[in-house]
Amino acid sequence: MSTASFRLCAFEMMTPVHQSPGLWRHPDSRIAEFDRLSYWADLARTAEDGGFSAIFLADILGLYDVYGAGVEATVRGGVQWPLLDPFTAVSAMAAATDRVGFGVTASVTYEQPYLLARTLASLDHFTHGRIGWNIVTSYQDSAARNLGLQEQIPHDERYDRADEYLDAIYRQFEGSVEPGAILADADAGVFADPARVHPVGADGPHVKLPGVTLAHPGPQGTPFLFQAGGSPRGRRFAQEHAEAVFYIGPTTSHVRRFVEQTRAELAEAGRPADAIQVFAMVTVVVDETDEQARQRLEDYRRYVDVEGALALFGGWTGMDLSGLDPDAPLEHVENETSRTALAAFTTQSPDREWTVREVAEFVSIGGRGPVIVGSPQTVADELQRWQAETGVDGFNVCAAVRPADLERFADLVTPELRRRGVLAEPAAGRTLRENLTGAGPRLPEDHRGAGFRHGTDTIVTEVAP
Amino acid sequence: MSTASFRLCAFEMMTPVHQSPGLWRHPDSRIAEFDRLSYWADLARTAEDGGFSAIFLADILGLYDVYGAGVEATVRGGVQWPLLDPFTAVSAMAAATDRVGFGVTASVTYEQPYLLARTLASLDHFTHGRIGWNIVTSYQDSAARNLGLQEQIPHDERYDRADEYLDAIYRQFEGSVEPGAILADADAGVFADPARVHPVGADGPHVKLPGVTLAHPGPQGTPFLFQAGGSPRGRRFAQEHAEAVFYIGPTTSHVRRFVEQTRAELAEAGRPADAIQVFAMVTVVVDETDEQARQRLEDYRRYVDVEGALALFGGWTGMDLSGLDPDAPLEHVENETSRTALAAFTTQSPDREWTVREVAEFVSIGGRGPVIVGSPQTVADELQRWQAETGVDGFNVCAAVRPADLERFADLVTPELRRRGVLAEPAAGRTLRENLTGAGPRLPEDHRGAGFRHGTDTIVTEVAP
Repeated sequence: MSTASFRLCAFEMMTPVHQSPGLWRHPDSRIAEFDRLSYWADLARTAEDGGFSAIFLADILGLYDVYGAGVEATVRGGVQWPLLDPFTAVSAMAAATDRVGFGVTASVTYEQPYLLARTLASLDHFTHGRIGWNIVTSYQDSAARNLGLQEQIPHDERYDRADEYLDAIYRQFEGSVEPGAILADADAGVFADPARVHPVGADGPHVKLPGVTLAHPGPQGTPFLFQAGGSPRGRRFAQEHAEAVFYIGPTTSHVRRFVEQTRAELAEAGRPADAIQVFAMVTVVVDETDEQARQRLEDYRRYVDVEGALALFGGWTGMDLSGLDPDAPLEHVENETSRTALAAFTTQSPDREWTVREVAEFVSIGGRGPVIVGSPQTVADELQRWQAETGVDGFNVCAAVRPADLERFADLVTPELRRRGVLAEPAAGRTLRENLTGAGPRLPEDHRGAGFRHGTDTIVTEVAP
Repeated sequence: MSTASFRLCAFEMMTPVHQSPGLWRHPDSRIAEFDRLSYWADLARTAEDGGFSAIFLADILGLYDVYGAGVEATVRGGVQWPLLDPFTAVSAMAAATDRVGFGVTASVTYEQPYLLARTLASLDHFTHGRIGWNIVTSYQDSAARNLGLQEQIPHDERYDRADEYLDAIYRQFEGSVEPGAILADADAGVFADPARVHPVGADGPHVKLPGVTLAHPGPQGTPFLFQAGGSPRGRRFAQEHAEAVFYIGPTTSHVRRFVEQTRAELAEAGRPADAIQVFAMVTVVVDETDEQARQRLEDYRRYVDVEGALALFGGWTGMDLSGLDPDAPLEHVENETSRTALAAFTTQSPDREWTVREVAEFVSIGGRGPVIVGSPQTVADELQRWQAETGVDGFNVCAAVRPADLERFADLVTPELRRRGVLAEPAAGRTLRENLTGAGPRLPEDHRGAGFRHGTDTIVTEVAP
């Protein structure tokens, strides 16, 4: 078995149900406290003590409204609703920790690039460089309707806009305020050197941003860039921009294929094959022994919320499985399109027969990803096997019962991983980028964003006024 | 002398220069640490220990670029640039305190109402109801250009949009999720009761928001509403919406006139004459004795940044005083429009002659507002006199050297105010609205926003789908 080391992220969302509908009802769950700041400060300490490199905060901007053509199951089940603003909790989580990073989701479709850059820069300062940005383009019609669009922008156009948006972000973080521009020199009377502060100068069809950025960049310049996107256009976007991607695949062969594809495509895009780290999602249910862990998972299954699972499934796939006999074969996915969609979603054969209940069970604990169940030794074995067989750089660990499963991971699995010397842990006093990549705090020279630095061979001087 | 009590807010901004250009260079200043979280957590504790009801965080969304037709003096002097995102610091400040509130500025012109409601709700939860929103419509062309508008929306139209925006906010905080809708009832399997969750149903010309709000409202429902706007249209907006307004007037007679006008206009608008609290801005320089305080102010004057003051003045008035002899009479404001504008800004006679240096000195310590200088007894006397002569409900206290002047206020003035029994202090375990108004945590029944509650005689049922 490989002894290559890997990194851990905690996959979280500021809402009652993230990936496991109904498990907020388990007696061990404290997630009903998700609207208290202490919940998130405690979680940050748990992740930091457990050797996690970052806490990844997912986000969406609408309610799941496909199942039953409404939001009833979503609301009743607390299925990613209510959902708090992840940016608002970070400073308190940062104040409670000094090593763990924060990957925060923000949409390039709905956030102003001038304001988002300031929000990210502020948090990069306040966390001493521990901020990552999970770049999303937002896929829900229900979000579009509430955010000033009649319907969402077509998928590929969203990514074209996103490229331009990212360049406006790089111009702000890499080009507008040079490193060393902030002097705070009281004797000379110079807070910042105007010769080293430049107009952003973005003037594209989608993003016009002529002025100077609002906040000086933090220790990382551009915050560490996460992305998750499986479509060809989404992958091309990731190859241009991402430093880490998240992937959900149910088996090691799926994940290995994704990792290999990522490495090959990076080479084509002219970036080093290891320029993007891949984190695979896993849900971990651990207990003292394998048997106890299996019993724990069985116990969890008693709390599954079938309608909540179908609300989640509907939101993810667009398929409404309401009003059907839960145990009859799924007839209305017998048409070709639906069968293909279900096969793609489950990554199982199009010939497989499904009942509604089976679909709900498929997504009900740990969403689409694998569930690793066992003793600390078994879980460590499995994580090492996954790493060896897929070549991933780390795992995005998801808790079913929250935060209990994360706490148990930190208490039971982390010591075993440390004993084996396979856990790459973050160090205090270093930025998220340094901790994840082992290189410097700023974007590497061969990253697209580095081309916007002032004085480089540069797009900035081309278009700045 | 009156012994009526009054409240205190600390007037702050997450930037090197707020109202006193150049004073970041004073040896007592620590404001160069404005990009560290510890600075703001310390400040929150100082304000709380000093009996302040709230910390008011000002904000703008562009650089001052009128003086010299550029941003050089702004950048060199750190004049409200760099400027961090006030929302990002609140949770850490809240975690360090348990009584003081936070008034955070956000623009209805540039923030999506669906997302802003979520940000405010999240912070209202995390602070246990200590959030206030300072509603601004944003007045800078430099902001408009960087936020997708070719120029800013005309002033009155901004306020018409703002009315509609506020109604969409009330629909979210008062109408979309009824109090008691969140059950987290594990036995019944109901996280939230769908019968008590409703579509927002905003369908105006400017704001369309059909869906359910993203986050359940916090303890206050609608966060406490601050506003500052001196124009007739701005005042009409305040009369409809605000629960507290900030005013800057250089003399008690100016402030008294504003307070009287506010009370009279409220009565016309059908709200109680005390429905809006007025906070007057004061800059306080205190020391052990009157003489020491006067010397301190003289010392401060040595650090004034004349160009920075003119950059601030240019941004506020649109008048560019660059390239002139600092000590010659101001010839280019000899035309009628400029003379009127300067007189309006300084609230001094249109016949007064000004030099550039005098204008800079006028704004250089404490902006346009009064500076109260003296021993703790003198400052307390002056605050009581201002309160008695103007009828204000409180003061928005501004520090010249930051945070030293706020710390000295808390150390020296607060004990004197407490001794006199005139300081109305916030209590722990109560919301900002309860602490400021003495009434309940939610908007009062006669507030426009209360009309959007479900089951009231309501605009919600008219338009919701």
